Amino acid sequence: MTGTDMHGLVRRLYPLCRSITGDGVRRTLEIISEYVPLDTYEVPTGTEVFDWTVPREWNIRDAFIADATGRRVVDFQESNLHVVSYSAPVSATMTLDELRPHLHTLPEQPSLVPYRTSYYQENWGFCLAQETLDAMADGEYEVRIDSTLDEGALTYAEHVVPGQVSEEVIVSCHTCHPSLANDNLAGIAVAVALAQSLDNPWYTYRFLFMPGTIGAITWLARNADRVGKVKHGLVLACAGDSGHLTYKKSRRGNAEIDRVLAYVLRDREHEIVEFSPYGYDERQFCSPGFNLGVGSLSRTPYARYPEYHTSGDNPEFVLPEKLADTLSVCQQAFSVLDRDRRFVNLSPYGEPQLGKRGLYDSLGGRSDAKQAQLAMLWVLNLSDGEHSLLDIAERSGIPFDTVAGAASALHDAQLIKE
Amino acid sequence: MTGTDMHGLVRRLYPLCRSITGDGVRRTLEIISEYVPLDTYEVPTGTEVFDWTVPREWNIRDAFIADATGRRVVDFQESNLHVVSYSAPVSATMTLDELRPHLHTLPEQPSLVPYRTSYYQENWGFCLAQETLDAMADGEYEVRIDSTLDEGALTYAEHVVPGQVSEEVIVSCHTCHPSLANDNLAGIAVAVALAQSLDNPWYTYRFLFMPGTIGAITWLARNADRVGKVKHGLVLACAGDSGHLTYKKSRRGNAEIDRVLAYVLRDREHEIVEFSPYGYDERQFCSPGFNLGVGSLSRTPYARYPEYHTSGDNPEFVLPEKLADTLSVCQQAFSVLDRDRRFVNLSPYGEPQLGKRGLYDSLGGRSDAKQAQLAMLWVLNLSDGEHSLLDIAERSGIPFDTVAGAASALHDAQLIKE
Amino acid sequence: MTGTDMHGLVRRLYPLCRSITGDGVRRTLEIISEYVPLDTYEVPTGTEVFDWTVPREWNIRDAFIADATGRRVVDFQESNLHVVSYSAPVSATMTLDELRPHLHTLPEQPSLVPYRTSYYQENWGFCLAQETLDAMADGEYEVRIDSTLDEGALTYAEHVVPGQVSEEVIVSCHTCHPSLANDNLAGIAVAVALAQSLDNPWYTYRFLFMPGTIGAITWLARNADRVGKVKHGLVLACAGDSGHLTYKKSRRGNAEIDRVLAYVLRDREHEIVEFSPYGYDERQFCSPGFNLGVGSLSRTPYARYPEYHTSGDNPEFVLPEKLADTLSVCQQAFSVLDRDRRFVNLSPYGEPQLGKRGLYDSLGGRSDAKQAQLAMLWVLNLSDGEHSLLDIAERSGIPFDTVAGAASALHDAQLIKE
Repeated sequence: MTGTDMHGLVRRLYPLCRSITGDGVRRTLEIISEYVPLDTYEVPTGTEVFDWTVPREWNIRDAFIADATGRRVVDFQESNLHVVSYSAPVSATMTLDELRPHLHTLPEQPSLVPYRTSYYQENWGFCLAQETLDAMADGEYEVRIDSTLDEGALTYAEHVVPGQVSEEVIVSCHTCHPSLANDNLAGIAVAVALAQSLDNPWYTYRFLFMPGTIGAITWLARNADRVGKVKHGLVLACAGDSGHLTYKKSRRGNAEIDRVLAYVLRDREHEIVEFSPYGYDERQFCSPGFNLGVGSLSRTPYARYPEYHTSGDNPEFVLPEKLADTLSVCQQAFSVLDRDRRFVNLSPYGEPQLGKRGLYDSLGGRSDAKQAQLAMLWVLNLSDGEHSLLDIAERSGIPFDTVAGAASALHDAQLIKE
Repeated sequence: MTGTDMHGLVRRLYPLCRSITGDGVRRTLEIISEYVPLDTYEVPTGTEVFDWTVPREWNIRDAFIADATGRRVVDFQESNLHVVSYSAPVSATMTLDELRPHLHTLPEQPSLVPYRTSYYQENWGFCLAQETLDAMADGEYEVRIDSTLDEGALTYAEHVVPGQVSEEVIVSCHTCHPSLANDNLAGIAVAVALAQSLDNPWYTYRFLFMPGTIGAITWLARNADRVGKVKHGLVLACAGDSGHLTYKKSRRGNAEIDRVLAYVLRDREHEIVEFSPYGYDERQFCSPGFNLGVGSLSRTPYARYPEYHTSGDNPEFVLPEKLADTLSVCQQAFSVLDRDRRFVNLSPYGEPQLGKRGLYDSLGGRSDAKQAQLAMLWVLNLSDGEHSLLDIAERSGIPFDTVAGAASALHDAQLIKE
Repeated sequence: MTGTDMHGLVRRLYPLCRSITGDGVRRTLEIISEYVPLDTYEVPTGTEVFDWTVPREWNIRDAFIADATGRRVVDFQESNLHVVSYSAPVSATMTLDELRPHLHTLPEQPSLVPYRTSYYQENWGFCLAQETLDAMADGEYEVRIDSTLDEGALTYAEHVVPGQVSEEVIVSCHTCHPSLANDNLAGIAVAVALAQSLDNPWYTYRFLFMPGTIGAITWLARNADRVGKVKHGLVLACAGDSGHLTYKKSRRGNAEIDRVLAYVLRDREHEIVEFSPYGYDERQFCSPGFNLGVGSLSRTPYARYPEYHTSGDNPEFVLPEKLADTLSVCQQAFSVLDRDRRFVNLSPYGEPQLGKRGLYDSLGGRSDAKQAQLAMLWVLNLSDGEHSLLDIAERSGIPFDTVAGAASALHDAQLIKE
């Protein structure tokens, strides 16, 4: 998928009213499944997942605030951000003063509509531009939220790319945000494109499309036996804005995924931040009981751009070329991760004689013949079972691809084994 | 005790002629016991303490050098610094030339009287200003030291503040210096004020008032069974001059006390120096056989101010506000140390749901509600038995008090245990 | 040996045509044995040494390219660099165009003759100045290489200085380069001078004079049982040019030899580079199966000076004072290494009383008495079996000699033991 393709997916998913449960999520997953096959799971309301309980399912058909003339001053049909997610149904007539406690605005960004939720405390509310509120006269308004909070299910989906080994890499993105493009339709689009591009990988790659927090906790609770197989992971969020890439390390801080991302990002403008227990679902994967090697890749991280969690985070805020750039870094990172293995030199006493095996000749025509030869010496010297190919690339300063190529040639010559 | 109160104690103790043994030490401890109760110990001359032997007890009533007219040119009654500590008795008439080998001056600080000792080599001598010496005519002088070196005892004292646990923190200060204010009446005064201010601490705090070197060695030799209980310690010396605070690390270099002091001092002008086996009684506590987590807190360290070990180190050299400042840092440090514990998250798989336990609501009215909530997430995330609350404060950048408060709330909610 | 003496040895060895085998090596070792006794070993052609086989022995009597008038345009008698080492015998008449594939020049250094070898691929060739080649007219040339490639032996030699313990330090230098002075007659000369200067050392020192790569591999293969005794080592190469000293660390990176060289070099202009599996025989000693604590000392490292592997690397390129300087650093390094041991404080509880043992008095007359006393306190404090004297010197900032002297005094006083 090109950047334009990914941007098309973002635009297509944008209008749907997603939340942590409900039909907006189901429709989102249906659209994704047009790109990559999905296994979709429905977890019933009331299911206990660790310390949490799957909540009631929320669905909404319409909502508005209408003035005395019947004009919809605030209208869910224009933007699903106008309703606080998980709002209970309401049908009432009330004065502006009675309504005010239920209205959310951004006084410092008066033309933008904020995004608000109230998942676990039953409540209702509307989000609107401060400018809209300022224009509302005193007097009575008709207030309607045509929503349901019923027994139902939490919906999430997986797409698996089988690898040569059963050890897994998870790529996770949250699907619970309604009309917000960078957060996180961009992450979803990059994940989909990444899933499409994997070709017979070493690891098994599991792509997770699920609501934030409760979704990740639900997945972890239902996959306790699989978690031991998860060796690496990446949470994708805010993946398409114009900022440079930011990698947030896993809780371990020196997990292989942390080192791979630092390696892949080293030659471009980027930022690497330490783990903190706030952000996206790395919080759950990196909770102390799991402590997985899962980091998070974003462009501008959450809450660091003014459009964050507002109607300003629309498809125009996401750039096709930045989606493509995020995708490219993910592909590079997984390409390194997939080849980063430890070998053991089978001829560890002194150097083996490369010449008699034709390993020098084989480099004859290459412009990087000298570096390729040096890479062989480095791989032989450090292949003691302690150093991975990424260690060797970092220590030698030779590009990972050259090191991996040398390892492959030495492996073919039976000078090293895994 | 205020800075002024501590300064009053310094002035009150200043005139006494202290040494490593003798009545000056006993009188000093009597005065201290008016502020905090003391257990005083007398260890007889000849007692073997590790590689050392408790020496004879030294007492002195009078000493002078008088000129031919009978005028006291150098007079112990004016300052006890005039006599080399542990001087043997002398009663003689001698010429200035015969006397010279027994006279100690500071040619480069001609108006100051030096402080000298000769504990373990029997000798006698006088200390005087170079200016005084320059004014002494040739000719005969009457020389008298009315001292005794007899079987007796070494005297030291302890004040214990019982804690909730039997593990101990020791606070040690040397009591062997005569009329020198910063070194170490200031340390004594801060220790006394600190002892008074402790209120039901976690650790048991043991304050040690004892002569330098031989006193600490004696205490260690007599408390071999207690040393295992000593988890942390601080030696207080030179605690009242106008310089900024200097913390000297324990031999371990990363003991908890080292980290606590670095943490408490981080936002103010200060210096942290590595351990060296020279200084005060941290030398003994950090000898390799003990290797205790004991550091040393001073303002300007020994030998780094011109008044050090001279008559210039008088009560005017010590400032009430600096005594108060040293005390305040000690109190902060022990407040952190007392609360710095490791917890284990009882709900380590994903985040527990804080909302249903009212842990978010409880923060409602606080100005730092967001930080307090973040502190809970950090404590939950890092409470794996490996990270202490100080680790968490350092890693999160959240103030220790907020972290400790979060831990307390989580402990009350039974989400973590010790 | 003085710098001048070493330079004399360089000049004396310079004309010989050395290679990885042959009479030039034997003659070289004979000359060395006039300075230090050698045990010389002959390893027959065909002997398997790890992954390698000792090759046929190469000898050469004469070689030239003569023009139609019979004038020798390129003449082995002028410089043995003119023949590619291990050239097979040739006797032919050919045109310049036919000859060209066998001619090696340095177009960018037109007046210099390059150094080339073809040990493991049978071939022949001449090396000459680009200027010479440019002056050669088209037409026919008589080409003669009067060499032999026969069953024979690989020759290497050892000189051993017995130590007080059987643990060994190896000093290795390659003997396979023909008329190249810095690389490596300078290394040979420094090794010889170093061997002469050792006087009853602690370690057993084994000096190895052997061809590069195949020589080191042969030695390792024949000394498998001895390798366990090798605790430290140094490869000497390019030891006499005008550049500053460069130390290349062992593969371990923190071996004692690495720390010793860093310590000895710290106060002078120098460079320390990380290990890489390219260079001299540290490659073999540091192969993963051995991973010995062997570093390499050079002045300007190989390939970093324009004269490298050319006729410009002649005796004038090597300076007597630089040979002396390299020697001096080696001597200092081995002096530290030989004394760098771990002690255990026999009186570890508090400080022992130095005064009663006369350990203070013994310092009376020394200008560094205060530092020497401090050194005793440091040695006592850190002698817990974990810290070596070099550790103590580094941590205290006190010169190693002073620390070692303090350890010696404390050992004599039975306060520490090894």
